Amino acid sequence: MGAPPTLALDLGGTRVRAAVVDGEGRIGGRAEAPTKAREGADAVVEQLAALAFEALGARPPEAVGALGLCAPGPLDTGAGLALATPTIRGFTDFPLRDRLAALVPWSVRLAHDGHAAAHGEWRFGAGRGSRDMVYVTVSTGIGAGAIVDGRPHEGHRGMAAHAGHMVIDPDGPRCVCGNRGCWEAFASGSAFAARAREAGYADGAAAFVAAREGDPGARALVDTLARYLGIGLVNLTHIFSPEVIVMGGGVLAGFDLLERPILRHVSGAAMPPFRSVVIRKAALGDNSGLAGVAALAQRALA
Amino acid sequence: MGAPPTLALDLGGTRVRAAVVDGEGRIGGRAEAPTKAREGADAVVEQLAALAFEALGARPPEAVGALGLCAPGPLDTGAGLALATPTIRGFTDFPLRDRLAALVPWSVRLAHDGHAAAHGEWRFGAGRGSRDMVYVTVSTGIGAGAIVDGRPHEGHRGMAAHAGHMVIDPDGPRCVCGNRGCWEAFASGSAFAARAREAGYADGAAAFVAAREGDPGARALVDTLARYLGIGLVNLTHIFSPEVIVMGGGVLAGFDLLERPILRHVSGAAMPPFRSVVIRKAALGDNSGLAGVAALAQRALA
Repeated sequence: MGAPPTLALDLGGTRVRAAVVDGEGRIGGRAEAPTKAREGADAVVEQLAALAFEALGARPPEAVGALGLCAPGPLDTGAGLALATPTIRGFTDFPLRDRLAALVPWSVRLAHDGHAAAHGEWRFGAGRGSRDMVYVTVSTGIGAGAIVDGRPHEGHRGMAAHAGHMVIDPDGPRCVCGNRGCWEAFASGSAFAARAREAGYADGAAAFVAAREGDPGARALVDTLARYLGIGLVNLTHIFSPEVIVMGGGVLAGFDLLERPILRHVSGAAMPPFRSVVIRKAALGDNSGLAGVAALAQRALA
Repeated sequence: MGAPPTLALDLGGTRVRAAVVDGEGRIGGRAEAPTKAREGADAVVEQLAALAFEALGARPPEAVGALGLCAPGPLDTGAGLALATPTIRGFTDFPLRDRLAALVPWSVRLAHDGHAAAHGEWRFGAGRGSRDMVYVTVSTGIGAGAIVDGRPHEGHRGMAAHAGHMVIDPDGPRCVCGNRGCWEAFASGSAFAARAREAGYADGAAAFVAAREGDPGARALVDTLARYLGIGLVNLTHIFSPEVIVMGGGVLAGFDLLERPILRHVSGAAMPPFRSVVIRKAALGDNSGLAGVAALAQRALA
C-alpha cells in the first residue's frame, strides 16, 4: 500500500498552508491562515505547528510518516536554517527545522518553495516522466527549481536555482536583492503590476482582462512581459537543457495570453537544438509545493 | 591496478590534440595538429583517427580500454551527433561518434568540451573534492560545464551548460549565435581583444601586459572584462549554488589581474549566503579536457 501520508506545510510571505498528502500527491485534510510574518520567527513556528495539527484533524499522529516544510529562500536545507528570508521577520540564520521539530512528533524535512513545487510538478504534474525539467514560479518574485538528469537539483547548502536573481540587464531597475536588472525585477508579477498601474490599469489582473478584450495598450504590456519572461527562460534552457519548463505562480492567470508570445520568443532566441523545449502551465496549481514537499519528505525517509 | 589507460581526443576549432591518459588523469603519449576544419567532416574524422594512433605509438590497441572524444557543442552526446558546430565545416547533424568508431578498434564516448574540462578539473584539478562545481572556459567564446550534487550535469541530449549564450543585456552586441547580448559577446577573449584593439593595443595579451605595467587605459579594460565575467559568474552562482568555480581558457593569461576585481564584483553582487563561493584557476591548463574526457569514457565503461 506504499508509504503512509505525509504532513506538508507551505510557508509563504503572506499565507501558510498545511495539508495531509498521500503517496500519489493527493491533498487531504487542509488548514490555512495568514502568515504571522510581522510577529517574528517564534510566532511563525508556533503557527506552523498549530496548522499541522489542524490539518491532521482526528487522525492519530502516527498516521503520518513525516513532515515536509517548504519556505522562501535562501535556506540552508541541510542545516535546516532560514538564512535571510526578507518577507518574514526574524528569519535570519534561524534554525527553522529544529524549532519546528521540537513542537511536533514527526521528523521535519525543509525545502525551498521553488524546489518543492518543481518536485511536485515533476512527480505528479506537468513535468511527469521528464528527466530534465525547470520549474519557474512567477508571483511577487520569481522562484525556480530544477530536475537535473532525473534528480532534484540541490546545490551547495541546497541553495540551487535562485534564478530570479539572474541579471538580464545590468542597467535595469533595482531589485529587492540590491542588484540592478535581475530577472524578477523585470518579469515578476509585481514588476508587471507596476507597469500596468503606470499605464493606467488598476493592477496586473485588470491589464490581463483588458488584453483579452483586445485593448492595444494592455496587449503591449503582455508582450513586454512575455519577452522578459522569454529572455530568462531561454537562458535557463541554454543552461539546463530541459525537456520541459513548467510555469506556476500568480502570473499564470494570464498564461492563455502569454503562452504564444513566450513560445515565439523562445523559438527565435534559443539556439536551434534547444527549440524543442516544451513550456507548460503547472498542473497542480497552488498545490505544487504541498505535493512536492510531501514527496521530498517521504524520499528522505526512504 | 585500476582501469587501463584511455585514449583522449580534444577536438577544437583550431587544433586537435590526442593523448593516452591513465586512471589518475596523467597525460602520456601525445599528438597534435591544426584542425582540418575547412576540409569537411570526413577529413576531420580521418584526422582524429590518425592522431589517436599516433598518440598510441608503439602500444598495442588492446592496451587502451576506450576512446573519449570531446568537441565543441551543441552535440547530442547520447546519439553521438555534432548538431551545429559553427567552427567546423560539415558538422551539422553529423554522426561524429559512429564515424570515428568505424575507424578505430575502441568504443567511443562523445562529450562536450566544456563538460569534459569540468570533469577533468573536478576529478584531478582545481575542483577536486567538491560536490557542486561550475567550470567556465573563456577563450574565443565561453564554454561551461557543471558538477551538480556530485555528478556531471548532462541535461536533455547532453546539452546542459551552454552558459556562454546566457543573455546578460538584451540590447548588447550581436553574438555569433544571432542573439544580442550573450555573456560571451561581452566577456569572451575575442570580445576583450576587440575592445583592446579599439583602444589601441595590439591584442588582448598586449593589454594584459600594459595593465601589469600600470597603464590606466589597459587597467580600465581589465576592470570592464572582470565586471562582465563577474555578472555571468554571479548568475551561475545563484543558479547552481557551487562551492567552487574553476576558470580556464585563453583569458586566464590575465587571471592574476582579473581575480581580485572578479571577487570584488561577486562579493558585492551575489546574495549574502552565496558569497562564500571560491573562484580558482584551472589546475590542468590545456589538459583539463583530455583528462576529463578520458575519465568520462572510463566511467561509461564501468
